[in-house]
Amino acid sequence: MSPSNRLRQQIAFIAEVDKVKNVFRRSYISDQSRHENDAEHSWHFCLMAMILIEHSNQPDLDLLKVLKMAIIHDIVEIDAGDTYIYDEEAKKSQYEKESQAADRIFGMLPEDQERAYREIWEEFEAGKSKEAIFAKTIDRMHPMLLNYLAEGKAWNDHGITAEDVRRVNSRIESGSQELWQFAESLIEECVEKGWLLLK
Amino acid sequence: MSPSNRLRQQIAFIAEVDKVKNVFRRSYISDQSRHENDAEHSWHFCLMAMILIEHSNQPDLDLLKVLKMAIIHDIVEIDAGDTYIYDEEAKKSQYEKESQAADRIFGMLPEDQERAYREIWEEFEAGKSKEAIFAKTIDRMHPMLLNYLAEGKAWNDHGITAEDVRRVNSRIESGSQELWQFAESLIEECVEKGWLLLK
Repeated sequence: MSPSNRLRQQIAFIAEVDKVKNVFRRSYISDQSRHENDAEHSWHFCLMAMILIEHSNQPDLDLLKVLKMAIIHDIVEIDAGDTYIYDEEAKKSQYEKESQAADRIFGMLPEDQERAYREIWEEFEAGKSKEAIFAKTIDRMHPMLLNYLAEGKAWNDHGITAEDVRRVNSRIESGSQELWQFAESLIEECVEKGWLLLK
Repeated sequence: MSPSNRLRQQIAFIAEVDKVKNVFRRSYISDQSRHENDAEHSWHFCLMAMILIEHSNQPDLDLLKVLKMAIIHDIVEIDAGDTYIYDEEAKKSQYEKESQAADRIFGMLPEDQERAYREIWEEFEAGKSKEAIFAKTIDRMHPMLLNYLAEGKAWNDHGITAEDVRRVNSRIESGSQELWQFAESLIEECVEKGWLLLK
């Protein structure tokens, strides 16, 4: 029996998104040996969200929804590329490019799944629901932690200062005050150790 | 305020498991440019499970539990290394090595989380609950699909035949008859195209 058209569409989508393994980010993995890619980041984001969800400012989050966001949030970068969070110019055209990518990539799925996962992606992008706020918090915390573990290597590559890190990442606080306090302690330690310039 | 001891333990665990990004598997990513690592595999496993869960033989699966299994199933390989599913000799000592690794790695978490995630890992390993059966199905389907996309490269590296692939992967059927039928059609196509030897 040949597979159903529905299964064929699902498998084509699953095969297509293999390409995120070749979308490299500015962050290094913790041993500093190479840049991290989007698939690895998305996995680590899932794991962090699962372990740290108790630190959300808001109670009763739907962890399954947060994980779905983590799993699919970066697949648009197959077409749109990774946008560095400190690149203000690139961020202006980011949503439009990513939205076109979402049309194409989620469009490979059967219609009901296309609608469902596109909605989850839009909800994450909008950053308004309690799950999206927490997911955005983890999406920011993850590269900050990696930068700390890699002794500030990516920040130094791009001339990022402690002031930049605080400004761009302060939205972590809206998802979790405890994680933002922790992030601030990491920033201070990086400055003390000479891994991050103050200004 | 300094972070709580609980948060410190959680972050130490999250930092430790970054090492799975350096545990490489026999499978290639679909463009054949390099081997895949465990973090990438775990992410792709999550995505496949989420998209394909409707094809489970058993209804009413707990997708959140399946995703938790996918996220943590390979972190024991930080200590135990990847065991190739076609290596019958290595598979004999696999559980013991992985169980010791689980003691150490899950042991980094606060006690309640250590217990919860260790249980999920054991449930996956046992392969008996409906979620574990389906998760094992996807864990097998994923490298088979990658091998198909990479034109059988990993199979050819290791002299694996269609007979081996059928024997080792037939348990896919216990989680999903539809996915096993699809897997069989991939195997046939690989043989026809000369990507996989018949015997």
